[in-house]
Amino acid sequence: MRYRAEVEYDGTGYYGFQRQLDQPTIQSDLEQALTDLAGRDISIDFAGRTDSGVHALGQVIAFHLDWKHSANDLLRALNARLSQSISLNALVAARPDFHPRFDARRRVYDYNIYNAPVRSPYRRRYSWHVKRTLNLEMMNCAAKMIIGVHDFATFGQAPQGTVTVREVFEAEWRRIDRLLVFRVAANAFLQRMVRSLVGTMVAVGDGSWTVMEFEEAFLARKREKAGQTAPAHGLFMMSVSYEADSLGE
Amino acid sequence: MRYRAEVEYDGTGYYGFQRQLDQPTIQSDLEQALTDLAGRDISIDFAGRTDSGVHALGQVIAFHLDWKHSANDLLRALNARLSQSISLNALVAARPDFHPRFDARRRVYDYNIYNAPVRSPYRRRYSWHVKRTLNLEMMNCAAKMIIGVHDFATFGQAPQGTVTVREVFEAEWRRIDRLLVFRVAANAFLQRMVRSLVGTMVAVGDGSWTVMEFEEAFLARKREKAGQTAPAHGLFMMSVSYEADSLGE
Repeated sequence: MRYRAEVEYDGTGYYGFQRQLDQPTIQSDLEQALTDLAGRDISIDFAGRTDSGVHALGQVIAFHLDWKHSANDLLRALNARLSQSISLNALVAARPDFHPRFDARRRVYDYNIYNAPVRSPYRRRYSWHVKRTLNLEMMNCAAKMIIGVHDFATFGQAPQGTVTVREVFEAEWRRIDRLLVFRVAANAFLQRMVRSLVGTMVAVGDGSWTVMEFEEAFLARKREKAGQTAPAHGLFMMSVSYEADSLGE
Repeated sequence: MRYRAEVEYDGTGYYGFQRQLDQPTIQSDLEQALTDLAGRDISIDFAGRTDSGVHALGQVIAFHLDWKHSANDLLRALNARLSQSISLNALVAARPDFHPRFDARRRVYDYNIYNAPVRSPYRRRYSWHVKRTLNLEMMNCAAKMIIGVHDFATFGQAPQGTVTVREVFEAEWRRIDRLLVFRVAANAFLQRMVRSLVGTMVAVGDGSWTVMEFEEAFLARKREKAGQTAPAHGLFMMSVSYEADSLGE
């Protein structure tokens, strides 16, 4: 039987999602919980790697498992075996060939910036503290530019031998009190792409780059033209969407 | 010179606000930073004690200090000496006799409940996870009852020899997605009062108590009539208000 589930995690202290030898990762913890339950090695597929320190509210995984009870019982049994930093949600039966990465059509990330002169202990785990005042309007001028089908080589790496073209559906900064939230949706992302975009847009927001300089860097399609890469702990993988018929629901 | 400041802190890992021998507390950290800066012992006054594990966005403190530079320089110098779990905000000169506890007129607390079948790693540090579905309307019936001048002996202790009457100005539960937030404002609170109210209202919300049973417990004015005490990590001291003329601004 194939199952699909959403995974929420606090990435603090983990070496990212993907399994690594001798390092704590989200994948290792999930596979350990499944293996303990099944009594034999179980491996999972997942929608996207997240870097060390990145969080998720809606990562998607899938796995094969023989299970005689309900999906809800499986959800409870797995959550009981996972640390408080990880939880499974919305576990359902999936089509036998469902793949969370290859079948994904839309991925959404949020990046949080805490924009205030003094740090916030309450916000510090889940946002990047930027002291200098940021101009949201200018950052949204840059954000609008990336919407559509573009070559994002400036902002990230693709797996060797593959293209760096992606389609961005949505890219917008919103202000919620002192929090600036960048929401970006795309068919897929290059490695480090959201954090590189955010770091470069912050340069636009604080006035050290003009919007035109952002555009020039973007059009140059050269990784070294990007600004700084924003820190991992402000980034959340929010959700992954699929064609309805790929889910077998 | 007397100064007044707001303090934000993540209470995780601290033994509450008030100084204790050989235990980490918020007060000890603040006084250590001031003492380091002044080169002699400085002690602070504060608006209210918070228990071990309770957080604050707007605790208020005051202290005497000889300082030759601007209040903003003082703010920066102190924040540089404090851990990432504590930050000072809104530091200003105050009247020489300003006292953050005795001059306070209104204190506001928020209590966060994460109400969902599965825990949330992202919400866990700052909210109480309650799995059973809570009826917000019933909880607000109980909340309405406590508004006004009442004897709150059921829900907390007063310092020895003092009365347990307090005036509650505002008490309401709101739902923000899966988060239930209880906001309560009063002239002052008894020890454990907010957490005891929250724990007892949750019994009303999950149907194990009727609203009438809540009222009976409230009117009994006996500590042992209260329901459970909600855990500390969902509680935030939000703000403390003063008469304008007490601030010397």
